[in-house]
Formats: sequence, structure tokens, C-alpha cells
Amino acid sequence: MSSTSAQIGVTGLAVMGRNLARNFARNGYTVALHNRTSAKTRALVEEFGDEGDFIATESAEEFVAALERPRRLVVMVKAGEATDAVIKEFAPLMEPGDMIIDGGNAHFADTRRRERELREQDIHFVGTGVSGGEEGALNGPSIMPGGSPESYASLGPMLEKISAKAEDGAPCVTHVGADGAGHFVKMVHNGIEYADMQLIAEAYQLLREVAGYSPAQIADIFRTWNTGRLDSYLIEITAEVLKHVDAATGKPFVDVVQDQAEQKGTGRWTVQIALDLGVPVSGIAEAVFARSLSGHSELRAASQGLPGPTAQQLSEAEAGAFADQVEQALYASKIVSYTQGFHEIAAGSEEYGWDIDLGAVAAIWRGGCIIRAAFLDRIRAAYDTRADLPSLLSDKTFAQEIGAAQDDWRAVLVAATRQGVPTPGFSAALAYYDALRADRLPAALTQGQRDYFGAHTYRRTDREGSFHTLWGGDRSEVGA
Amino acid sequence: MSSTSAQIGVTGLAVMGRNLARNFARNGYTVALHNRTSAKTRALVEEFGDEGDFIATESAEEFVAALERPRRLVVMVKAGEATDAVIKEFAPLMEPGDMIIDGGNAHFADTRRRERELREQDIHFVGTGVSGGEEGALNGPSIMPGGSPESYASLGPMLEKISAKAEDGAPCVTHVGADGAGHFVKMVHNGIEYADMQLIAEAYQLLREVAGYSPAQIADIFRTWNTGRLDSYLIEITAEVLKHVDAATGKPFVDVVQDQAEQKGTGRWTVQIALDLGVPVSGIAEAVFARSLSGHSELRAASQGLPGPTAQQLSEAEAGAFADQVEQALYASKIVSYTQGFHEIAAGSEEYGWDIDLGAVAAIWRGGCIIRAAFLDRIRAAYDTRADLPSLLSDKTFAQEIGAAQDDWRAVLVAATRQGVPTPGFSAALAYYDALRADRLPAALTQGQRDYFGAHTYRRTDREGSFHTLWGGDRSEVGA
Repeated sequence: MSSTSAQIGVTGLAVMGRNLARNFARNGYTVALHNRTSAKTRALVEEFGDEGDFIATESAEEFVAALERPRRLVVMVKAGEATDAVIKEFAPLMEPGDMIIDGGNAHFADTRRRERELREQDIHFVGTGVSGGEEGALNGPSIMPGGSPESYASLGPMLEKISAKAEDGAPCVTHVGADGAGHFVKMVHNGIEYADMQLIAEAYQLLREVAGYSPAQIADIFRTWNTGRLDSYLIEITAEVLKHVDAATGKPFVDVVQDQAEQKGTGRWTVQIALDLGVPVSGIAEAVFARSLSGHSELRAASQGLPGPTAQQLSEAEAGAFADQVEQALYASKIVSYTQGFHEIAAGSEEYGWDIDLGAVAAIWRGGCIIRAAFLDRIRAAYDTRADLPSLLSDKTFAQEIGAAQDDWRAVLVAATRQGVPTPGFSAALAYYDALRADRLPAALTQGQRDYFGAHTYRRTDREGSFHTLWGGDRSEVGA
Repeated sequence: MSSTSAQIGVTGLAVMGRNLARNFARNGYTVALHNRTSAKTRALVEEFGDEGDFIATESAEEFVAALERPRRLVVMVKAGEATDAVIKEFAPLMEPGDMIIDGGNAHFADTRRRERELREQDIHFVGTGVSGGEEGALNGPSIMPGGSPESYASLGPMLEKISAKAEDGAPCVTHVGADGAGHFVKMVHNGIEYADMQLIAEAYQLLREVAGYSPAQIADIFRTWNTGRLDSYLIEITAEVLKHVDAATGKPFVDVVQDQAEQKGTGRWTVQIALDLGVPVSGIAEAVFARSLSGHSELRAASQGLPGPTAQQLSEAEAGAFADQVEQALYASKIVSYTQGFHEIAAGSEEYGWDIDLGAVAAIWRGGCIIRAAFLDRIRAAYDTRADLPSLLSDKTFAQEIGAAQDDWRAVLVAATRQGVPTPGFSAALAYYDALRADRLPAALTQGQRDYFGAHTYRRTDREGSFHTLWGGDRSEVGA
């Protein structure tokens, strides 16, 4: 079966790798296949061989030899040590100008290291975010490649072909920036996904506990929301999940699922890196914390019986009005999540010199990925209008919308607070909004305290320089 | 000047090192002194030589030779590369059984590495948290040593002598646990300090903007609070800072300080490590984010004019009642902060096998350190009553107190929400409380969504195992 005609090769044929290989083949590319155990390679060809041209290979040497020059070798293995092992296996077989494309969920710092190491060998390492799960990998994912411009020149047209297409037909792929930029942006994408999911979860909980709706009724509400400005994949599938009835018990599916959310690493990384960059991503952080809190069953069990308020359910008419307010709160909080996420991308871009086009990032998230939404077209428009927008909240349209939503947003939080429904995401979003627009923040007091106990100094509003007050002495002020 | 009679040596004679050296000397120990530039060494002896027995040394060799065996060498340099450089300089001069005590704010992972490396040489590396600033270093800090039990046997009595004493006379030092345990606990101490300061800042802002009090009036309120259950160093100095009037302008000091709070690394680390450990520390995270947000002046400037509610100031009678409610909210939120912080310590202890006595940690924070407070005695009591308390909130006393505070806590958050005063810390604390005590969390929906888009599977409430629904098919359920 060996040949040297494959335009692309995929090693690692678990479900993501397999579907990506099929996607390339369906789009007319000859795809070399490789897997640590060759049974998976053979299975793919047996089952899907008629979808396109595959070259099954049994060894690393055979695999590399099957690729046309410059080689495009896609690695689809578990992020971490497995990626390093695969690179160690293949890099010695490759030649200057060849490309290794890592399509896993790697930490961007690892991607930066690998890119640097392989560059010494003149191999292009292209850390590439791929979003959309199995489905997207097969039918069109959102693709976020980093790496060198040369690698994108060679690889870009192929990625554009296999990627999802936005409603306007634009392929959901762009060259994000050098080295780890692609994996960085994919990481933030996932962080935003966590926040989106948490906000939806809070909206659901409020509709259930405050408004008294059933899961089926809430499914209908989400379906309605999905025809408006919240139109998105996550809102759509929320309706599907909520309307689903468990066959075994006849109960709403959501009531038989254990309420302990799991997570992989990318949400956590998004927050950790934001902390390093000094970017407040409170909404994403609360989403990550909400998942870990839900899993602490011992703590939760020990906290049962802690006193809360008596919940007062709304009348039917009130419930309908409340649902509309929740839509406003969800939308406003979503604007804040994206504001925080894009701030992190901007800060990463600045820190690592990636020169990321934020509008292009919004554009490639419009299709294929988990957070795809009509909303992203508006973010793209905001950055198209002004590429150096200091924050999404300073875009006129978003500012108007959030301004129009704020009364309802506050009303929802007042209800949640009074009725004891936890809304960490909604609350963090509002606190961020109110802090950003505040004329003065109590950070001045914090600086005063720091100067008091640690002589950390402070600046003044009325003149330049750093100052220290002699707190233990006559409390006069000295320059620092 | 050389001799071999010093019981302890200090290298790095900036303010913290100098004061710690003086503290040892004042307590009757002979202290060898060393600094990279010996001018500082000479200055110390000249200025404070009459406080005790100092041995000034000019070289690393002379310094090490001046110490009695086993040597106790305290390193007080900037955490990071400087620490490694000092170790590299001194370790080759030392002998098996000797101790290197790092009193800087090192990251506990670095401490673990250094301890491991020096153990090969049979040198005890004792990463030691020291809290209390310059003042504490001189007159008695709270001390959190990690490292081997052997090192504590030798070092402990000296640390007990120089440490702060709690009101009951107990020295504020304990052997926290092996290797990096001391620096870990110091890190969380600082994280809690961030949260405490943020909560105080929010209380101040509410009293100012909702109740309409002046800084001087708020100082009086804090002074009153300081006579009750909030009695603590930070509340005390808040009153001092708030009552201070700027001499240059005649304005309240807090109004002339720039409202951009700065930070060093430990608050951020606390959150990053909590994320790794899967511990929700939302209050600490919001405190760190509040500081970084305050510093983003461009974003803040661009957000001026975003619409908010019209603030309605309270009447004088209402203001007094509101101040009482704020005290309740502050106290309840503080309980949550400490619950989160101690959860992180428990999780770290478990992860690294440190077997940390949480009650002992609370006890040694009662004096000397920035977060010293009457409150810590009650935490100690809670863990004394039950060492394996799943959470501070499951302690009967704290549960009762927070239960009694919750109505006022909610009322304060309702006011803040309605009036547009940002309260990220108070809100995060309440959301944590309401989530922990919730019978069901919407995490079930999150798991359903994850199963829908990523086949991540879910567990059921009614039977063991992992399951997946064939969402794209007939929606039947399969075992996973």
C-alpha cells in the first residue's frame, strides 16, 4: 500500500483523528494513516475506505515516506507526554520544511517549547486548536492554527477546505499567530465555553426554582431564545437535553443525571494564564469553580441543612415576565464573558507578540465549534469597526445592549439573592460591569492598607510619583 | 571578628532579614551576619550592635565558619533566582545535618524541589513562611516552617522564642509539615489576606455609596466593629487609614490615593494552585481579579459612561441599620473566605502527604501576621472539636452564625445590586454558600450538555456506572 502521494498524514486514529482523516479524504485529499496499533488503521480503511483515498501504513518510516514533500503530518494523540513521544518518534525521520501539526488540546506553553525545539531542525510545528468534537472533526470544525506563516501558506488551503463554514460561507479557520497562538486561542475558546455553560445552567436553575417551570417548559423557553439574539449551538442543545425524558424512569433526563460536573484542563488553564497576564476573568473562574464545587460530595453533604431563605414561587404571569428578565440577564452576562475572554486573548497576543486579529478569531468561531453563535458575528463587527477596541464593552452596540439589559439583570440577581439560588456567574458578571464603569474603586483603600502594613507605597491622584506615609510615626508623607 | 559560636546566621540583610536578625539577637542568640555587599552588614552592627551578639562576616566562607554545628543558616533574599543563587553559593560549604532556612515568599513547588535536591547532600532545607512584615520580623512574626521533623527539633525552640505570642501566650509557630508545607500555608495565608482586604474594601464602598457616610464616619464604624467578633489587625488599620487626612489637600487620605491596587505573586498563586487541586476559592479569586481590574486604567476609562442605576441614598436612620447589616455580610463572607482557604490547605495536605494540623495553623495565625484576628481562635476551636471537619461551614458554631447573618447578608447584596456598587467578594461568598447547601445543582444539565456535544458520559442518581445517550440517534441510553 505504500506510496509517496499523500498530501496529508494523520497519526493517532482515536475518534478525533479518525474523523479528521475522513474529513480530509472526503474533501479529495489522499490521506496517509498511522496508529500505534495498526488494527485501528486497518479498521478505518475497512469501514470508511470508500469515502476517499487512504494510504494505510504500519510503521513510522512507512508513514513518513508516504507523504509528499513538504510533509504535512497531523498528530492526534492525547495532549501531554504522548505528544512529545510522537514528536520524538517522527521528527528524526523528517526533513527541513516539513510540518508537524498538533491537533490536540495542548497547553500553549508546551506548544511554544515544541515549536522552538523543532525550529532548530527547520521543521514547522503547527499547534492547532480544533473545536467541534467528533462531529465537527468529521463535518467541519473550527480550526485555530498557530505556527509560522510559511506553514500556513502550505496548510491553510487544506484547512479552509475541511473547516466549517460560517453562514456567509467564510471558512472557520485563520492563521491565528506564531508558535502557540492557536492553542492559546483554543484554550480561551474553551474557557468561554465553560462560562457559557455555567450561565445557561444558572438560567435553567432560576427558571426552575424561582419561576417554577418544569424542564420541558424550560426547554420551550430555550427554544424560543434560540430564535433571537441568543441563537447558538449551546442554547439549542440545552433545549434538547431539557426536553429529553429518561426512558427507564419516565422522569426528566436532567433529574436522573448526577449533579456533579466534570472537567478537563482547558477551563482551568484559561483562568491560570489569565492570572499570570493580570486579566480579570471572573466569569470563567466561577464556571470552573462551580464544576469543582459540584464534585465535592462530602462537603456538599456536610452542608445540607445550612439555613437558607424560604423560596417564594412566582405566579404564572410573574413567571413569564421573570423568564424575559432571565433572558436579559443571560445575554448581559454573556457579553461580559466574551469581554473577559477577548481581553485575555488581547493580553496574550501582546505578551507573546502574536498580533492576533480579534475580529478574525470571532469570525472563525461562528461555525463548527461548541460556542458557535449568531452573537459572534456581532463581535466580529465590533472589531471590524475598531480593531483596537479596549474592551467589547466599549463597543457602542454592546454598551447599548448591556445598558438596556441592566435593570432586568439586577432584578434577576435580586430574586436569586433573596431566594437562595446560587448565581456565581451572573453575579461575577454584574460585579465586573459595575466595577469597570465605577468612577472610583475601593482599591485606594487597599493601597492605603498595603502601605500601612508593608510600606508598599501608593500613588496619588493629584501628582506623579510614589509615596509612603509614616504610619508608625507622625503620619507625614514621604516620597518613595 | 570570626568565631564559631553563632547559633544562627542570616544572609540577606534588607529590611526583613535585618529585623529578623535583630529579633534573634534580642532574644539572646548570637547571630552571624552576611550580605552580598558587606556595607549593609556593617551598618546593622553599627546601628543595632548593642541589641545583642552579632558576628559580622565578609565572605560566604567566613559566614559558614561562624556557625555552630549543625548550622542554621537563614536566607532572606528575594524569592526566585536569588534563592537558588544563594543555595548554590552556600551548600558546598555546608555539612550533613546542617540547615538552610528560606524565609522568603517562595513558591512551594520551588521549595519542594530545593528540599529534594539538598536532601541528597543531607542538608535540611526548611522553607519557612514568615508573616508580619518588617514590624513582625522585628517584634515577633507568625512563622510557618516546613521541612524535616529533625530540622524542627533543632530550630523550633529558637523560632518559638522569636515568634509572636497569641493572647494565651502560645508561640505563633508550628512545624507545618514536610518539604514545601510551610510555604504552601504561607501562600494560602496571603490568599486569605487578599480576600479579607477585598471584603473590607467592599464594606467601605457600601458604607460610603449606599449609606452615604464619610471616610471619618466609616473609620468610626470600623473601630466599633473592631471591638466585636471582627476584631482584627486589618479592621484596626482600616480605621486608621480611613480617618487619616491628607496634609497637602486637607482631603480624606483615601480620596487622594490612586485607586489602582497592586499585587505580588502569592494571591495569584493561591488561586492557580487551588485550580490544580480542584478547590473552589472564588472569594480569593475575586480579590485578585479586583486588584487587576483596578489597574486596567485604559479599560476603565473606556467604560466610563456605561449606564448604571440611579443611586438612592439612605436616610440617617436607615444608614445606621444598613451599617449593621454590612457587618453581618462582612462577617458571613469572611467565614466563607476562611472556609475556602482551609479547604485548600486540607487539599494540599492530602495531595502532598503533609498531614497538616488545620487547628494548629489557625492557632499560629492568631498573632504576628497580617490576618491575625480573634476569629482565628474560633477556627482553632472548630478543628479542636473535630480535626477532620469536612469544611468550616460544617462546624456548628460557624453554621449558626452564618445562618443568623444570612438575611442581612442578602439584604446588603440586594442593595448593592440595585445601586450598582460592585461587590464581587460578597457575591462570590454568598453564591458559594448557596451552592454548597443546595440540594440539587444545575451541574446535572452541564453533564447532559457535555454528553451531548462530546460524548463525555454522565452518572445517574439511581444506579452505578457511566452512561451515554445516543443524542444523534434514537436517544436510547448505553453503558459507557
